[in-house]
Amino acid sequence: MKLKRMFLFLLAIMGTSVAAFANEEVGSLPQSIIADMHYNKAIHIMAMLLLGFGFLMVFVRKYGRSALTATFLLVSVTLPLYILGKGNGLLGSSHNEIDNLIFAEFAAASLLIAAGAVLGRLKMPQYIMLGMLFVPFYMLNEWLVLDNGLNIVPLGSVVDTGGSIVIHAFGAIFGLGVALTMTTKKELEKPIEADATSDRYSMLGSMVLWVFWPSFCSVLVAPDQVPHTIVNVILALCGSTLATYIFSIGLRKKINIADIANASLAGGVAIGSTCADASYTAAAIIGILAGGLSTFGFAVIQSRQQKWMKLIDTCGVTNLHGLPGLMGGLAALPLIHGINMGGHLSGIGVTIVVAIAGGIITGKVLPLMGRREEAYDDAEEFMDAEA
Amino acid sequence: MKLKRMFLFLLAIMGTSVAAFANEEVGSLPQSIIADMHYNKAIHIMAMLLLGFGFLMVFVRKYGRSALTATFLLVSVTLPLYILGKGNGLLGSSHNEIDNLIFAEFAAASLLIAAGAVLGRLKMPQYIMLGMLFVPFYMLNEWLVLDNGLNIVPLGSVVDTGGSIVIHAFGAIFGLGVALTMTTKKELEKPIEADATSDRYSMLGSMVLWVFWPSFCSVLVAPDQVPHTIVNVILALCGSTLATYIFSIGLRKKINIADIANASLAGGVAIGSTCADASYTAAAIIGILAGGLSTFGFAVIQSRQQKWMKLIDTCGVTNLHGLPGLMGGLAALPLIHGINMGGHLSGIGVTIVVAIAGGIITGKVLPLMGRREEAYDDAEEFMDAEA
Amino acid sequence: MKLKRMFLFLLAIMGTSVAAFANEEVGSLPQSIIADMHYNKAIHIMAMLLLGFGFLMVFVRKYGRSALTATFLLVSVTLPLYILGKGNGLLGSSHNEIDNLIFAEFAAASLLIAAGAVLGRLKMPQYIMLGMLFVPFYMLNEWLVLDNGLNIVPLGSVVDTGGSIVIHAFGAIFGLGVALTMTTKKELEKPIEADATSDRYSMLGSMVLWVFWPSFCSVLVAPDQVPHTIVNVILALCGSTLATYIFSIGLRKKINIADIANASLAGGVAIGSTCADASYTAAAIIGILAGGLSTFGFAVIQSRQQKWMKLIDTCGVTNLHGLPGLMGGLAALPLIHGINMGGHLSGIGVTIVVAIAGGIITGKVLPLMGRREEAYDDAEEFMDAEA
Repeated sequence: MKLKRMFLFLLAIMGTSVAAFANEEVGSLPQSIIADMHYNKAIHIMAMLLLGFGFLMVFVRKYGRSALTATFLLVSVTLPLYILGKGNGLLGSSHNEIDNLIFAEFAAASLLIAAGAVLGRLKMPQYIMLGMLFVPFYMLNEWLVLDNGLNIVPLGSVVDTGGSIVIHAFGAIFGLGVALTMTTKKELEKPIEADATSDRYSMLGSMVLWVFWPSFCSVLVAPDQVPHTIVNVILALCGSTLATYIFSIGLRKKINIADIANASLAGGVAIGSTCADASYTAAAIIGILAGGLSTFGFAVIQSRQQKWMKLIDTCGVTNLHGLPGLMGGLAALPLIHGINMGGHLSGIGVTIVVAIAGGIITGKVLPLMGRREEAYDDAEEFMDAEA
Repeated sequence: MKLKRMFLFLLAIMGTSVAAFANEEVGSLPQSIIADMHYNKAIHIMAMLLLGFGFLMVFVRKYGRSALTATFLLVSVTLPLYILGKGNGLLGSSHNEIDNLIFAEFAAASLLIAAGAVLGRLKMPQYIMLGMLFVPFYMLNEWLVLDNGLNIVPLGSVVDTGGSIVIHAFGAIFGLGVALTMTTKKELEKPIEADATSDRYSMLGSMVLWVFWPSFCSVLVAPDQVPHTIVNVILALCGSTLATYIFSIGLRKKINIADIANASLAGGVAIGSTCADASYTAAAIIGILAGGLSTFGFAVIQSRQQKWMKLIDTCGVTNLHGLPGLMGGLAALPLIHGINMGGHLSGIGVTIVVAIAGGIITGKVLPLMGRREEAYDDAEEFMDAEA
Repeated sequence: MKLKRMFLFLLAIMGTSVAAFANEEVGSLPQSIIADMHYNKAIHIMAMLLLGFGFLMVFVRKYGRSALTATFLLVSVTLPLYILGKGNGLLGSSHNEIDNLIFAEFAAASLLIAAGAVLGRLKMPQYIMLGMLFVPFYMLNEWLVLDNGLNIVPLGSVVDTGGSIVIHAFGAIFGLGVALTMTTKKELEKPIEADATSDRYSMLGSMVLWVFWPSFCSVLVAPDQVPHTIVNVILALCGSTLATYIFSIGLRKKINIADIANASLAGGVAIGSTCADASYTAAAIIGILAGGLSTFGFAVIQSRQQKWMKLIDTCGVTNLHGLPGLMGGLAALPLIHGINMGGHLSGIGVTIVVAIAGGIITGKVLPLMGRREEAYDDAEEFMDAEA
């Protein structure tokens, strides 16, 4: 009977559709609801970019206006460049409008990390140029590592949900490349000073990053994996925060507030690759290890790095984003069931190569635009900035 | 056959309902999901009101406690006044609870803009009175321009999704009206001072506004238009931020941090009318033009306005909200397909008239409550505020 | 006819399901949408914990780095402890992952309130120990009062949606218990100093709390009650903010900025118990009364409390969370239709007993870890903190 068959067909469709909706399969949520979920997290990430990275860099006491202005400019260069680039089919296909924005924000985050390595030693037009040079390298790496560009890294083999590798490590290594080429002898001798007010601003930035980090890591995760991802990120951050305190006091006798503001975030950096899959315990352990490693970096490695490599990493991005980012990337090897080890490692390798090459090239170009007379001082570029 | 017809009827209803859901038509999303989407943006707007406007006004170095307290009071007067007014059917019909709150927040934003023009020259009870006088004029204008009150402006003819006209321009012109009537000779001679700490607080406010601006503009847009609206707003803000830097250095030789904190936001102001409809390119261009215009206002117009009109606009709301708001309103004429030009322009005209009249009346009333002895100084009204 | 019956059955199911969705019954929204709604509010609460409570406590001018570090540590101890405790079935059954996180955040909020009472007088390891001792008492009270632990308080009889009783009053009374046992004579003589910068940081914290308070109160409310809850919370906050200004100037002649930063929030504290049920008018009145009561506490009670009880309550948590929390709890008696008065009051009673006992025990344990040499000073524990 025709009617009966039509009816059963309807039953099947309706049943499937409603069941799918109830069973949380991604595709079944209406597109405007998915877009809204992504949007809220995109705004959280925007808060991280401007308020988080911006204020974290205000720790340089005479360079606050500059750090914040540079943050504004770096973000304002990256977002349109990336969105328009992707929109024109450059280096990989485009996503929907909100997701394009989110990928552009990831690029901006990575750029701000890179800029942290040379903070205070570029003029404003040089920050803008840094952004314009950085974005193509970043997009190239994204294409090679995540989109199987040139067939080097097998599609889907790099596990990096929250960007430990392609965002954090890439940005830090790129920044080191720039710093390596550009650091002058005069800069090596000039101390970077903080005070009570700049420290508190820096903690403000740090806390903004901490608060919104779960959104950064979970924004592109399937809806039914989001809750577990979020709790993992928070446990990792709690772990690194506690470890930072313990290592700071252990390695230095007194607490260093810059350790707290920075290394507390290392858990967020390191959990990026495995945030959707790790168990609570694994997440907490990754956080603790990352916090310890990062604090060790700030307390022990940074001064040696400066002496031996003759480079200044103003914000210590090596210690906050570089080492914990690589650690997080490697943590995926034992933790992710059925990971393609070779593919994953080749993704890390490509990232390191592109970042260091891009950084060094950029570090050669920027000085063509001149050099600052005085590092870390608003007064050189800002009116009425003596106060 | 009755059953068959019933079945086909059911098929039609179910089919339509599910399809509509999938096709993103607004009405088809459950009310509690729409309410949640609006709620998240309502909270973003609340952050703009208190943290954004509040800290942007902390640039006056000795008047920070007062600026923040005034912000608290202005918001706390406006929200209940507007919500209870609408709830009692005053000047137009009421919305659902969340949307009523959002319209009340818009009123508070416009009031904070108006207050910016006379910041530092009112006593606390005068800020409260300013709010109580402002809200009725604001609601009157909203009714005339958007709700066809008195049949002057045809319903739906004013395109102003994000409030370039009825929020930004209205608030700025109202504030100018107050400043025009109230500015004293003594105030004209007293410099408005900032310092490194107040500048950084001001940048904090600016960044909060920047970050959450997409929510401000998209909160009442249909869900399927939200993603495009959001990217437009961000592109406009990027445009104005870059333009501000270029114009600031171009017009002044060195960067003025107040330009950066303020004019960077002009793209958000100006994109308000066309944010849901403009193309990416148009949005970026509106942003660039608005940033340039606003910076020109701060660098060139403001000092002349002060000399010729004998008025002080403490926060430069003319340059951040007035000119870019009007520019944004006019940008709708060429950009919006099929716009009712006469209706749209009459909406702008009515807004200007109500704002200037309301502002002048308010400026006559407030001095009846006395005058401050010393402008821009916490110590007059706050305990232990010498430090 | 079989087909007909099947069809009607289908009709019934589909009809119910679609209607339920449209009628906003909670259970009918897909789990991942509910989780996302809760998640957004969980992040708002996280902003309150770190940025809100953290910066509110920066009012102590030489103790900003410490207050922020302590906030980081207190939160980082509580969240894993609570999540892992619940996960192992300790004191009541576990929720889903997001809701577990939210309950853990509530515990952290309560702990930060308790810590406010002794702020500046603990060493960092003591803050960590405070957290480790607090959490079990908090979970015990939650179990007794909300989960019918030991059959003392009937299930569902305590009306406390936004935590006036089990979060605010509990935290404040616990903190008082600690302060009562620990305050030294030297501390009683040392003034707690603020300055313009610390005051503005404190206002930043206050505003963050104000902005996100509606999420705190509405996060666990049924979706269709959320809009009304939110507007109620905002009206209560507006009421307390206006009342605080009026009482501050009335009781002290000049405005005290600490009153504004603190007592403005009392409406949020007091509306907690009845936020989902009160009328707009009742919410506004509760806010006004709470703001008045809290300001009276800061202006009049605090100095006497110090003299008579020989205890210092550094942040005045008695006045912000203790009295308004109890007031809010009692306000449920006349306002909630059909409330189980005995059960509700026994919940308040149990909360007071557990809090005071827990606080006193904790206050006996903490001094075993030694004492600070100098209260309210970063320099004792932080490097380069003289500036």
